[in-house]
Amino acid sequence: MARWEPNARERLERAALALFAEHGYDATTVAGIADRAGLTKSTFFRHFSDKREVLFGGQDLLAELFSAAIRTAPPTATTGDCLAAALRAAAVAFTPERHDLAPQRQAVIAANSELQERELLKRARLGSVMADALCARGAGDTTARLAAQIGVLAFSIAYARWAAPGNRRPFSEIAREALRDLQARATALGADAGARA
Amino acid sequence: MARWEPNARERLERAALALFAEHGYDATTVAGIADRAGLTKSTFFRHFSDKREVLFGGQDLLAELFSAAIRTAPPTATTGDCLAAALRAAAVAFTPERHDLAPQRQAVIAANSELQERELLKRARLGSVMADALCARGAGDTTARLAAQIGVLAFSIAYARWAAPGNRRPFSEIAREALRDLQARATALGADAGARA
Repeated sequence: MARWEPNARERLERAALALFAEHGYDATTVAGIADRAGLTKSTFFRHFSDKREVLFGGQDLLAELFSAAIRTAPPTATTGDCLAAALRAAAVAFTPERHDLAPQRQAVIAANSELQERELLKRARLGSVMADALCARGAGDTTARLAAQIGVLAFSIAYARWAAPGNRRPFSEIAREALRDLQARATALGADAGARA
Repeated sequence: MARWEPNARERLERAALALFAEHGYDATTVAGIADRAGLTKSTFFRHFSDKREVLFGGQDLLAELFSAAIRTAPPTATTGDCLAAALRAAAVAFTPERHDLAPQRQAVIAANSELQERELLKRARLGSVMADALCARGAGDTTARLAAQIGVLAFSIAYARWAAPGNRRPFSEIAREALRDLQARATALGADAGARA
């Protein structure tokens, strides 16, 4: 029987990020991560499929949060309301307690081109998830894809601002502001075309 | 001395796409492609770095076309004008003579998850190239990123419509229409936020 390990997931995450920073991502092993966390390899594999999952597992949670928020928004919600709801829902993944992990994670990814590609692909997947959820509510395919691009960009901007060292503002507030700002810029870009059509 | 081989690049491309369709991407070799095209392996390597490049080499050309069009647009051009110029410039890569290659290429990519990821990454790179070129003209970072997302989405939609079997409309016309349509939708999405702000 496996013992219950308090906070095992977060301990493994912190151990992994520390080792990635010290020895590099490639040189770090699952055994080393488990050892540093004072846990076993089998505990590691109950939480993560591999060491890459330590960096990107959170994006599966995000995809679920985005999708659920859009699908359960009130029937009267506009597409913009749905994006706002998705970003609001994501805030549970960006608590003050997790703030110090974000720059560590970003530094590991920035140092490795394969991980950068994985990050881009995960962002693209978040966009597909948002677009699918908007389509399921009846938004047309093109509007859903455009809105999802704006939603993912708002998320990316908000995440970078939230993760910045010294930031103390909550994610939900930063994300709401980023989305509003992008929507205003989208209007300006659209008006630009209209004036010349 | 290497002989001059007329149309070598396109012959290699057609041979590769035929073999990918017949035997699958993974089972096709560079030697097989060169043989089918009636050319040598060294001729292949003068045109492509590997067999994957046959599918994605065109996107390097696109990146150059997008970037050059945005950088050389008149000083008075708006961000929307720059996107339109980029898409117009891309039309040289999508001539009627190349129309039959597009569905073959898409079928090969659709059948292979690694190639799908490569396609997503290349699209992301096209977005970065557009955003960088817009920034170089003085667009703010956020506007440049948003405009680039809209530009890449317009490109993706236009490419899919142009590549559809039976399409006879020129790429430039399809792309202009797709961009206008997205700009109108962007205005609507922005107005949606404004009404509730």
